[in-house]
Amino acid sequence: MKHVAIMGYGTVGSGVYEVLTKNKEVVSKNVGEEVNVKYVLDLREFPGDPVSEVLTHNFDDILNDEEVSVVAEVMGGIEPAYTFTKKCLLAGKSVCTSNKALVEKHGAELLAIAKEKNVNYLFEASVGGGIPIIRPLHTCLTADVIEEISGILNGTTNYMLTKMSVEGADYDEVLKDAQAKGYAERNPEADVEGHDPARKIAILTSLITGKKVDFEDLYCEGITKVTPADIAYAKKMGLAIKLLATSKRIGDQYSIMVSPKMIGSAHPLFAVNDVFNAIFVKGNMLGDSMFYGSGAGKLPTASAVAGDIVEAAKVTGNTGHFWTEEKLELADISNVENKFFVRTTASAEEAKAAFGDVFVMDDVEAGEIGFVTEKMTEAAYKECAAKLNGIISMIRVEG
Amino acid sequence: MKHVAIMGYGTVGSGVYEVLTKNKEVVSKNVGEEVNVKYVLDLREFPGDPVSEVLTHNFDDILNDEEVSVVAEVMGGIEPAYTFTKKCLLAGKSVCTSNKALVEKHGAELLAIAKEKNVNYLFEASVGGGIPIIRPLHTCLTADVIEEISGILNGTTNYMLTKMSVEGADYDEVLKDAQAKGYAERNPEADVEGHDPARKIAILTSLITGKKVDFEDLYCEGITKVTPADIAYAKKMGLAIKLLATSKRIGDQYSIMVSPKMIGSAHPLFAVNDVFNAIFVKGNMLGDSMFYGSGAGKLPTASAVAGDIVEAAKVTGNTGHFWTEEKLELADISNVENKFFVRTTASAEEAKAAFGDVFVMDDVEAGEIGFVTEKMTEAAYKECAAKLNGIISMIRVEG
Repeated sequence: MKHVAIMGYGTVGSGVYEVLTKNKEVVSKNVGEEVNVKYVLDLREFPGDPVSEVLTHNFDDILNDEEVSVVAEVMGGIEPAYTFTKKCLLAGKSVCTSNKALVEKHGAELLAIAKEKNVNYLFEASVGGGIPIIRPLHTCLTADVIEEISGILNGTTNYMLTKMSVEGADYDEVLKDAQAKGYAERNPEADVEGHDPARKIAILTSLITGKKVDFEDLYCEGITKVTPADIAYAKKMGLAIKLLATSKRIGDQYSIMVSPKMIGSAHPLFAVNDVFNAIFVKGNMLGDSMFYGSGAGKLPTASAVAGDIVEAAKVTGNTGHFWTEEKLELADISNVENKFFVRTTASAEEAKAAFGDVFVMDDVEAGEIGFVTEKMTEAAYKECAAKLNGIISMIRVEG
Repeated sequence: MKHVAIMGYGTVGSGVYEVLTKNKEVVSKNVGEEVNVKYVLDLREFPGDPVSEVLTHNFDDILNDEEVSVVAEVMGGIEPAYTFTKKCLLAGKSVCTSNKALVEKHGAELLAIAKEKNVNYLFEASVGGGIPIIRPLHTCLTADVIEEISGILNGTTNYMLTKMSVEGADYDEVLKDAQAKGYAERNPEADVEGHDPARKIAILTSLITGKKVDFEDLYCEGITKVTPADIAYAKKMGLAIKLLATSKRIGDQYSIMVSPKMIGSAHPLFAVNDVFNAIFVKGNMLGDSMFYGSGAGKLPTASAVAGDIVEAAKVTGNTGHFWTEEKLELADISNVENKFFVRTTASAEEAKAAFGDVFVMDDVEAGEIGFVTEKMTEAAYKECAAKLNGIISMIRVEG
């Protein structure tokens, strides 16, 4: 029998408990022996909930129980999750987590401890919720040089952009709706400013490069400035606006950005709508691939944590997920090339004088034009934009 | 240093050689030591090709070389691939393959030998070419009861259906085009009659159930009868016709079918076009997920074989991919429910008399109507269809 503990009985934690109990048969079959939840750690009481039988308020119960070999950390936040995780790993217990903030901040150190202690620190649920992406990147796409990872990595903002697109609603309206539905937090900053997808693309890039990426070093632009007019222009061109977190290989470096982007219907991410997430991966041999599913939600996220628990309970020794404390050198985004969609109160002639050959659309909003530039670097865009008055907004165009 | 042998230097074999040489650095980094191709087995000579330096015509060179710990079997066909694979496994070498026919026919036996010898028989490339699906199913979706796997598992037929849809061309035209482009074989039966996707869905179902599935036991309908008129009706309803291989859980059994199906734009497989493949997986906790990529092609398939080589070279012992010789009991497809799209020369009144409430379209082709039934079982459909004269064609509708 494998004994497991769950730290945190919030949304994800109660989901993990539900998956491990309802699916006990398949979980135990896949591990090769019975899997038993011996402890659930939470400060609160849950009277009437069957979890009460295994509830503890004392972390040391878990830490000091040698029978417990796998621990799920689903508390969220940095502390006490960091301290608890470290102690568990040092005690020779594997830890499985959905805590992207902790993985992004202290992943290198915790992975090193796991390696040293010959156990595992697994974090499939930290990126893309239920979508298998961490283990496929680590165990399948291992014969490829990864040229690009681009993801719709935040369900809240994808829901909002989808709703703006379908209903023509504006940002404030859809934010209120997303908050009412529980998709967005009362303080939505981490989602709408793009910090959440920035953390996730940092983790994915660390995984493929073996080096630490600090999300605070990344260029990050959220969706707060996207308007119904931007979406109307995009639709007119057959494009969709998505909040993309992108990591592209340039020589031996990676350039990483989070920003709204217009993408065409041929792009695998074009049709990813509502709260769904998807991750596009391009390998130099594999070509294009994509992983799609529920990026958040209690049970999909819990399913990913439980899948990690099965893996940790099944394997012997460390599986080698690893990156070092050494910081990845990021490519200067000034050299990243895109097309740019620009709205301006200037004339088509003025736009062409500043940007050269551009594709102009002038029948969407009164008193302005929208145009798309040729492919150019961020630096070149800045230079041209400085020559044009009346710029209302800019959104990058993929391709 | 890890020494590897490649058996077969055809399309996939030369691709594997290319991946392992061009990407030697990333492959070796992921294995943790240098990976060297020591032998390539082929009966032919390749004068001027660098492969000549490691070419052998004698299988025993590989079998008897104790330095070779991982062998790629990319010869295709049952013999001599079966005999060679068995001997390698018995000699304690892991084998990685793209050979779906062999995996489907002798997988249970070869997996048992691999387990006994504590090595691995890996076959990521046998389903969905470069798309990671075997290992994700085996190592990620392990806490879920898999309710459904539905895949566009054949690139040739997906290319043909896409072309019929975009150009309104008929079956014979697009088959000729696919043959000219090298997507379809001169004898296209395995693709167009659905035997290829049937083998693949058999493998996927074996993987999730642990029991043997014989593709010859499956209901299998190809695309040879799909006409431009069928596609016109589908388009009019906002649907796409795809050749789907579907395995659905009904109680403790699975019902498996390969057939053309009409699917709506909300289905993740709707936008999968041309030679791309995708596999939709529904877990009871995870919900909907999808894996998308190149289902065939030299380098994508070779990338998957090379990913297996990395895995086999990296892990210690057997990773547990397994199914037994015991045959999976298949659910009677008579009980499978679908909607049905039917074309008939009969009148709308006659259609309603036979099928009850149906959705009728009568303005697509002269002298006929098309209609969609309510959801009903295969058995009920047969019963109703027997009461209606003049049925021209029937295609199942998902949902």
